[in-house]
Amino acid sequence: MSTLETLWTDLLRHRTEFETFHLRDAFAADPQRFTRYSAELDGCLTLDYSRNRITDRTLTLLELLLDQAGVREAYHRMSAGEKLNGTEDRSVLHIALRGSVASDLVVDGETVLEAVGAVKDRLYAFAHGVRDGQITASDGQPFTTILNLGIGGSDLGPRMVTHTLRAFHDGPEVHFVSNVDGAHIRDCLETLDPQRTLVLVASKSFTTQETMVNARAARAWIASAVGEEKAGEHFVALSSNLEAVEAFGIAPDRMFGFWDWVGGRYSVWSAIGLPVMLAIGPERFEDFLAGARGMDQHFATAPFRSNLPMLLAALGLWYRNIWACSSVAVMPYDQRFEEFPSFLQQLDMESNGKSTRIDGSGVLRASGPIIWGAAGTNGQHAFFQNLHQGTDMVPCDFLISARPSKADAYQHELLLASCFAQIEVLAFGRTQDVALAQLLEQGMAQDEAERLAPHKAFSGNRPTNLLLYEQLTPKMLGRIIALYEHKVFTQGIVWGVNSFDQWGVELGKELAGQLLPSIQAGARQADEPAIFHRLKAYREN
Amino acid sequence: MSTLETLWTDLLRHRTEFETFHLRDAFAADPQRFTRYSAELDGCLTLDYSRNRITDRTLTLLELLLDQAGVREAYHRMSAGEKLNGTEDRSVLHIALRGSVASDLVVDGETVLEAVGAVKDRLYAFAHGVRDGQITASDGQPFTTILNLGIGGSDLGPRMVTHTLRAFHDGPEVHFVSNVDGAHIRDCLETLDPQRTLVLVASKSFTTQETMVNARAARAWIASAVGEEKAGEHFVALSSNLEAVEAFGIAPDRMFGFWDWVGGRYSVWSAIGLPVMLAIGPERFEDFLAGARGMDQHFATAPFRSNLPMLLAALGLWYRNIWACSSVAVMPYDQRFEEFPSFLQQLDMESNGKSTRIDGSGVLRASGPIIWGAAGTNGQHAFFQNLHQGTDMVPCDFLISARPSKADAYQHELLLASCFAQIEVLAFGRTQDVALAQLLEQGMAQDEAERLAPHKAFSGNRPTNLLLYEQLTPKMLGRIIALYEHKVFTQGIVWGVNSFDQWGVELGKELAGQLLPSIQAGARQADEPAIFHRLKAYREN
Repeated sequence: MSTLETLWTDLLRHRTEFETFHLRDAFAADPQRFTRYSAELDGCLTLDYSRNRITDRTLTLLELLLDQAGVREAYHRMSAGEKLNGTEDRSVLHIALRGSVASDLVVDGETVLEAVGAVKDRLYAFAHGVRDGQITASDGQPFTTILNLGIGGSDLGPRMVTHTLRAFHDGPEVHFVSNVDGAHIRDCLETLDPQRTLVLVASKSFTTQETMVNARAARAWIASAVGEEKAGEHFVALSSNLEAVEAFGIAPDRMFGFWDWVGGRYSVWSAIGLPVMLAIGPERFEDFLAGARGMDQHFATAPFRSNLPMLLAALGLWYRNIWACSSVAVMPYDQRFEEFPSFLQQLDMESNGKSTRIDGSGVLRASGPIIWGAAGTNGQHAFFQNLHQGTDMVPCDFLISARPSKADAYQHELLLASCFAQIEVLAFGRTQDVALAQLLEQGMAQDEAERLAPHKAFSGNRPTNLLLYEQLTPKMLGRIIALYEHKVFTQGIVWGVNSFDQWGVELGKELAGQLLPSIQAGARQADEPAIFHRLKAYREN
Repeated sequence: MSTLETLWTDLLRHRTEFETFHLRDAFAADPQRFTRYSAELDGCLTLDYSRNRITDRTLTLLELLLDQAGVREAYHRMSAGEKLNGTEDRSVLHIALRGSVASDLVVDGETVLEAVGAVKDRLYAFAHGVRDGQITASDGQPFTTILNLGIGGSDLGPRMVTHTLRAFHDGPEVHFVSNVDGAHIRDCLETLDPQRTLVLVASKSFTTQETMVNARAARAWIASAVGEEKAGEHFVALSSNLEAVEAFGIAPDRMFGFWDWVGGRYSVWSAIGLPVMLAIGPERFEDFLAGARGMDQHFATAPFRSNLPMLLAALGLWYRNIWACSSVAVMPYDQRFEEFPSFLQQLDMESNGKSTRIDGSGVLRASGPIIWGAAGTNGQHAFFQNLHQGTDMVPCDFLISARPSKADAYQHELLLASCFAQIEVLAFGRTQDVALAQLLEQGMAQDEAERLAPHKAFSGNRPTNLLLYEQLTPKMLGRIIALYEHKVFTQGIVWGVNSFDQWGVELGKELAGQLLPSIQAGARQADEPAIFHRLKAYREN
């Protein structure tokens, strides 16, 4: 048995020490528990992990687990351009997009930081040009609206970041369309003016079906207003496929590329971030990159007990593999940050939802969990019932800003109080005895109170992390996204999977192409699946 | 051991027969599997459950389980006005809102259908008045915009239904604000004209903190434009608390009530549905109710093997309790239907996320699962990697319309092809041998192909339900919501929980009220939790 497997065994054995553990007792016994189990970065971002089912011994074992799995070495190999994405024979260098690699690093014959800088210069010049009206629509007037067409990584990242940073917008309004469902683009176009709209087509290959179908619809809509020959002036390509971009009618100087060492779900730092640059400006985008760069440095150098990504990853492994938790809930207490759970869903589930290790053997234990969640306080009125009194333990991450994004002190204080109350109830609960005493105190008859008390009891002892930060600025958002990127990276290394491929999405695309003609054909073929016949009947009704 | 427990034991034993079961083989062995395992309602709604790990014996046992648990009897007791919500001493009669109870049913001294009809008449008259311009804003001009303020059931239901039925809108534009985060209402108000806006304040108690804070903000905004004395003309209350409504300055004839036998998550059929009535008109709202009524009848009368809600519930129990699946993913392949997973999240998780049975004893097995999901095809590019190749089995419901909501045949055909491809890949997968053969066929060298094949293999055998319907009309949406309501009801009866209370959300509210003064106070008190000190430091920076 390898030392890694020994550690897993130690962790399983260690769990038996928690038979009588309750967070209520742990806090009562140790007034310093917050100090012991919290870590701070840059004096403005705190990870409070004191409300977890852990002791010092848990952290010691988890630290050994990460060490033994070689997390730090793997990060250094990634930074050095090693082809960690072995199944696609690619380096993994999204960290280079924020400057976290050596200045002399050469990959595929290019000095990485030079190549990144050159594209970034072009992107920033373009963003400045659109924002200050030097780059205009075909009628010589400024663009006031941006429409981003992309899906998956070419949509979730830039959309989430753009919406979250609304307080910092001073550029054109940005809209996002992703779904192949024609209602998505048509509902959006109805609200826009083609004369004033700049369309960004975001697809590395420039062949993503959803995006290209929507791009053609948008092109027809633009052309009908400004004429076929001028339509190209309303388009930008975020792509690496020059030939396809030109064939679509977009000039080469309107194409911004990136590299095969940037995965889709890690691409908001690249040209895919153009909608963000247009909305908040290149200077603030630099702050966004700087925040992520700071987190990269922190991840690479901080000791385990103050290393935010490693702590989040280690706690996740503890619950996933030792406590058999199958999902993690993420609750940003911030309406503008509401898309963060969807973004994380892709980041985590597409990276680590794998059953095969890099060497081709099967994983030895459960890998990536389900990630889900919603903005607080909305979630409280929707699914928190289950988190508090359901039968499964669901570890939760709560995220909240100490200061509001928009001046509204009182409503923000209510938000803070709600968030803090939830994590406290999840941790401490309310015993049946206390519930009974409270009901009697309210004057309820003994037998009625005894009947109700079990329903008003909360088990508590439900683990949460709290991420508390000063304010959700571009820099802070950069930090937080990079924090979760490195959490996912760390877990992927421990599980031994390739966190950077996504073969699981390919087969469905192939098959869809094969099924399309059958769906289009009105004719019923005897050898088609019976559900197709039902479909045809409904379509012809 | 009761007969119910005997059935659970039989089901557990039956599971051992699935050691070598694979959906690939099941379909190969039985070309009639779709016919055997599908059910249709009204010639326009099909539940295809053939891609589940089931045999006839599974269904026989599950049917016995539901019978033994007394699902049908429970529904009759509910319809008869019995106080199924025992912990709150209330009847459960949302089905009465769509006419599915006896005309002479009396509850709390009222003839239920008469009371429902009287409020509905007032709601419809009001909706007609606003829609045709007879009921006007304080300047005598029509309202063009509706702002609904509510949270949880007073938001998720009407919001989801309004957005989903966009193709049928011919009334004023409707907006929804829920979060206590001040950014939510402020971001929304910035885009609206107070002179033209009618605000619906949706809170049964008229004390829900989030909603009342937002209502006061909206009132100040209206008053600043039309004057304090006329502001009330821009408000409607969806509430049962006459005193509080009048104190807020809303006239009694602008208040539409409902009853304590309507739970929040079941309230879209009541006055809480007013935003829907305003958007699509009372006639189409009647279709919506009629669809639900049809499903009620179907649920009450159809035999198990053609009973859609019972089948969905039974399959859910099979996976939750016999296969230990902790979550269910819901994928509407329809952009306008994208909020359905959030709606279901509340419906299911707040109803059955309970650990205590009605009699006060603990549940004997896992109850309500995690419900999550997103619109297709977006989900494919986000988290489907994990569904296809992750280590956990996640049963999925796919929902798709045979016809598009907006005329765009080609994009809808792509959507259909994508949906059908995903369920086929989930069921059948691709063996490593087939993956290897395909790579070799593409000309890849043997050793490289052998290295990659494990990564391109899909286990398959992952269960899905497909809900295929002719078109997503108001009537169809009514059917689908009621279908899931009865699924949740059925599971709640089998687990023995009260699906109609939500004590798990109360304690957090109480505690938030207690914490608020500490958060507001700048002063640091030594006995406060240390995280409060960190919070204060960040707020004062």
